Amino acid sequence: MVRTGRRPGESGTRDAILNAARESFAAQGYDGATIRGIGRAAGVDPALVHHYFGSKDALFAAAMQLPVDASAVLPDLLAPGLDGMGERLVRFFLSLWESGRTRAAMLAVFRSALVQDRAATALREFIGREVLGRVGSQVPGPDAQLRASLVGSQLVGLAIARYVLRVEPLASAEPETVVAAVAPTLQRYLAHEGLLTGTSHHA
Amino acid sequence: MVRTGRRPGESGTRDAILNAARESFAAQGYDGATIRGIGRAAGVDPALVHHYFGSKDALFAAAMQLPVDASAVLPDLLAPGLDGMGERLVRFFLSLWESGRTRAAMLAVFRSALVQDRAATALREFIGREVLGRVGSQVPGPDAQLRASLVGSQLVGLAIARYVLRVEPLASAEPETVVAAVAPTLQRYLAHEGLLTGTSHHA
Repeated sequence: MVRTGRRPGESGTRDAILNAARESFAAQGYDGATIRGIGRAAGVDPALVHHYFGSKDALFAAAMQLPVDASAVLPDLLAPGLDGMGERLVRFFLSLWESGRTRAAMLAVFRSALVQDRAATALREFIGREVLGRVGSQVPGPDAQLRASLVGSQLVGLAIARYVLRVEPLASAEPETVVAAVAPTLQRYLAHEGLLTGTSHHA
Repeated sequence: MVRTGRRPGESGTRDAILNAARESFAAQGYDGATIRGIGRAAGVDPALVHHYFGSKDALFAAAMQLPVDASAVLPDLLAPGLDGMGERLVRFFLSLWESGRTRAAMLAVFRSALVQDRAATALREFIGREVLGRVGSQVPGPDAQLRASLVGSQLVGLAIARYVLRVEPLASAEPETVVAAVAPTLQRYLAHEGLLTGTSHHA
């Protein structure tokens, strides 16, 4: 849908939708909130919410001021297949933290999720469904979702250690050094069937 | 030194020392604060600080209400050597979070470090010197400290994902499943020389 310029009052409508979205995600979680309910709370037709923001995950990304919308980025990272997926994921994740434009937004999201239970609930559901769910659907084996969540744990910990706590020498290491160190960890989680059962077979 | 019962006023003195320690660690960081300065701020002889709390890291653990003192625990975890070190570290770390008695304290420490810059500075220095420094000193190679900090990143991320964000199915997985999944990651970081340079040789 091509945007053809803003009508008078459009930014007020967008803001009303974003405020209603933040309220709804906090009160009902990511899974519980609906485009319809958010439109009603904002006093607009749900079709207008769709028009402005597209999908629920894009609305969540806008409402939470996430620097990227997972649904817009992950398909490209996952499409080439399991081979090299660990490296693609850590490289993209690092790029969000290395850029001053997106680092502040990432930090704000992390902090609110870690101190506010309501924010944590909505973010957990969003990450579970839109990020880890997409990753897990692209990897083989019955424990794919567990392995996707282990990938998430290493990426979250990398961000906390490197950018929040700034633990050295990890904080000062070159991005490519970090990619080289962490990509095999993610790849092992992604590709390593039998992780759950202990019947491991190393690559 | 054997404790022979509390004198009148002892708990007041201990509290004064702990308050002075919290102030000093926040103002000067872990590295900058000294037993001498903390004693002076509390209006007691530094020898009394030593008497009550022993070392600076034990005083930090008491002041920050850490559930364990790293200097009391890590030697036993590291002493058996590199073989199995990853498993011993993740198993012990998980035990701190699995017990209701210590989980709340771990959570409080994490949250304060993530939202207060002064708390983050002191905790970073403490972790760097007393935890990762000790781990790094027990593993081979010129990039030992980087590899120790990568171990820290996976453990921090595991705690955040499993116990704070409660990402499923990681949050509900059995502790032994988590140990089996994460121990090889830590072991690779610990044992994998050439991580920095890219001249990797897989075990």
